[in-house]
This record gives sequence, structure tokens and C-alpha cells, in this order.
Amino acid sequence: MKTKSNSFSKSENTVWHRSLVSREDRTILNGHKSVVVWFTGLSGSGKSTIAHKLEKKLHDMGCRTIVFDGDNVRHGLCGDLGFSEKDRHENIRRIGETVKLFLEAGIIVLTAFISPYKSDRKWLRELISSQSFVEVYCSCPLDVCEQRDAKGLYAKARSGIIKNYTGVGSLYEEPENPDIVIDTSVSTIEESVNLIVDYLVNDKKMFLDK
Amino acid sequence: MKTKSNSFSKSENTVWHRSLVSREDRTILNGHKSVVVWFTGLSGSGKSTIAHKLEKKLHDMGCRTIVFDGDNVRHGLCGDLGFSEKDRHENIRRIGETVKLFLEAGIIVLTAFISPYKSDRKWLRELISSQSFVEVYCSCPLDVCEQRDAKGLYAKARSGIIKNYTGVGSLYEEPENPDIVIDTSVSTIEESVNLIVDYLVNDKKMFLDK
Repeated sequence: MKTKSNSFSKSENTVWHRSLVSREDRTILNGHKSVVVWFTGLSGSGKSTIAHKLEKKLHDMGCRTIVFDGDNVRHGLCGDLGFSEKDRHENIRRIGETVKLFLEAGIIVLTAFISPYKSDRKWLRELISSQSFVEVYCSCPLDVCEQRDAKGLYAKARSGIIKNYTGVGSLYEEPENPDIVIDTSVSTIEESVNLIVDYLVNDKKMFLDK
Repeated sequence: MKTKSNSFSKSENTVWHRSLVSREDRTILNGHKSVVVWFTGLSGSGKSTIAHKLEKKLHDMGCRTIVFDGDNVRHGLCGDLGFSEKDRHENIRRIGETVKLFLEAGIIVLTAFISPYKSDRKWLRELISSQSFVEVYCSCPLDVCEQRDAKGLYAKARSGIIKNYTGVGSLYEEPENPDIVIDTSVSTIEESVNLIVDYLVNDKKMFLDK
């Protein structure tokens, strides 16, 4: 490259550090707003199942999406954390901060974590802002979750192999005022997905007016 | 919602956990691939300046983008970390894992961190895959960076107020084989941005063929 006298100057550096593309710019490019749909509920309550099916539907509607669950977070970003109360808080903190970056990038984020503590969910809503935070409580009786037990973890918890499993040895604090409640022992997956899409489209006005 | 007999079953849960939207699906939706442009270089070498200007250009070309720098990462996701060698490694590890999630989401990520250690950059390339990792070395003589000193940090380092500042009390390990080298003491910002865009379009074949 040629030598130029007008190369980087101190003032240029100072002025240009700020972002030149805003969340609003990305909303316009995408044609939709960015929100996080935060699923909470016991293991086996259907969080991941609904999240992935919802993502497929939103993608087919032309939305930019991502699902966070144990599979892609616990092995990577939070791979150094265990399941003590302290580590569970730190797990949620990092996920919250990461979600914030994704919302800034214009992406619709769907998260599927037990997130058993009220204080964590309250912190998340404040971090992210109520406007962009949709709390979905997958309400499902413990015995139904245990019957499903897709990963065989309830059985291990009952036999004492796993300690502090949520619902067995560790508390799940039910949401008092979630944006959406789905009783997944009675609703089909399709009904659940449609309910959330309706909420995003009509209540959250997710899509920009053409 | 109505009660249905065909609500969530164990097998449904097992089958549906996997992602139903792939990185390739998102590439098709966006019309471009996702890569990370990883800027490395001394403080004051122009990393953030070029990254933000590059983002603006890519956004105007219709790309989905995000910039990570100290401003949006050090205060959030990595707010609990300091500047010891151990914390610097953990900082880069978390950023790397987060970048990986963004690439999965189809986003072009531009990162502006000193990232002084060769071992970290090697780890990043392996984590992310060479195909999606573009290392840009902002090469700039230390005295030029010090003259710019937009944040006044070199002065503090020289006077001993800041310990272990990269280039003063702490080592910067130059890349041996970066994908792009820019001498920001001679190149203009516009030239630097255009060089990277050309590389992404022609070498990385970033845009899908219509």
C-alpha cells in the first residue's frame, strides 16, 4: 500500500471508536426486532423441544435466530462451570451478557435453561430490559417430567447418583408473573409454538410495518 | 389451550432436541457466509477504528455484523476478569466461544483486542476453523502507537501507574503468518477497509453466488 500523510491520527482514533451500526440499523436490515424468549421450567418440561421448533418456524418466516441450551453453552462458554449455586448464577450471568450481545446484533434468541432462581430471572429482565425479554414458563407437573426423563437424569437423582437435581434435591422457584405460561402436559408442541409466535407478532410487534 | 392426548412424549423430546436450523440455512437466508475477522496489534494500532469502519461498509453491503471490543465485552461478559496472564487467557477463551456462537448464527464478527499471545491466537484458529478465521495484524511501530495514545494509557504505563501494559511492561508476540497485514502508520483507514473487504469477497468467497 502507498504511504499517505493522512493516515490514522489520534483524533480519528478517538472519534471513530464508537459503533457506526446500531441495533436499529440491524432491525431495519432484518425487517424484525430482536428479542429473547427465555424458557424456564423443570428438566423435561419441554423447553428445548419448543425452542427448537419455534426457531424453525421463525426462520421460515425470515427471522434471524439462535437457540442457546446446555448443548452449545455448557460445553463451550460455560465449560468451566459446575452445578453449585454459585456456578449456576455465573452460568446465567454469562448467558445473559451473551444474549445482550446477540440482541444488539439484531438476532432473536431462544434460551432453554432450567434457570430455577427468581433472582437470576429478575436480574436478566433488568439487564436485557422488559421490552426485549419474554419469559415463557413451561409449567409441567414434576411427575410428568419424571415420566418423560429423556436423559435418565431424574432416575439418577432419585437413586442419589446426581445430587442437587432441580425438582428432586434442589429447588425450582416458579415464576410469579411470566409473560407466557404453557402447561406442556396438556398443550401440543404446535399449539405452544403458535402461542409464542402470536405473542411476538401481536404483543411485541416483532415485524416492522412494510 | 385444549387438552390433547398427543402432547409431549418422551420420544418427541429425544428426537426434537437437535437444532432444526443450521448454519448453512442461515447463510442462505443472509446471502453471505459467516466469518470472524480477528484484529490483533498493539493498543493504538487502529484495530477498533478499522473494525467499526469495516462493519459500516459490510452493513451497507447487506451483511449481518457485530463488533466486539473492550467496550462491549470487558464491561459485560468478561467484567469479572482482570489483566493478569491467566485472566487474559480466560478473556480470549470466552470471546472465542462467543464468536463461535455468532458464526453459528450466521453473523460476521469483527473483534478488536490486543490478543498479544501466539498460543491464544493459535487456539482460536483451531476452535473456530481456519476457513472462518481471518487474522488481521495491525502492524504499527510502538512509537507511533504511543504518539496516538488516544486513551492516555501509554503515558500511564511509562510513568508506572499501569503495570504490564502490552508493549511497555508486557510482551506482544507478533503473528508469524496472519492472513492480512496492515501497516497502519502508512495506510489510510479507507485503504485498510477496502483491502479486507476484497479479501472477504474474493479469497473467502463471502457472498453466495446468485
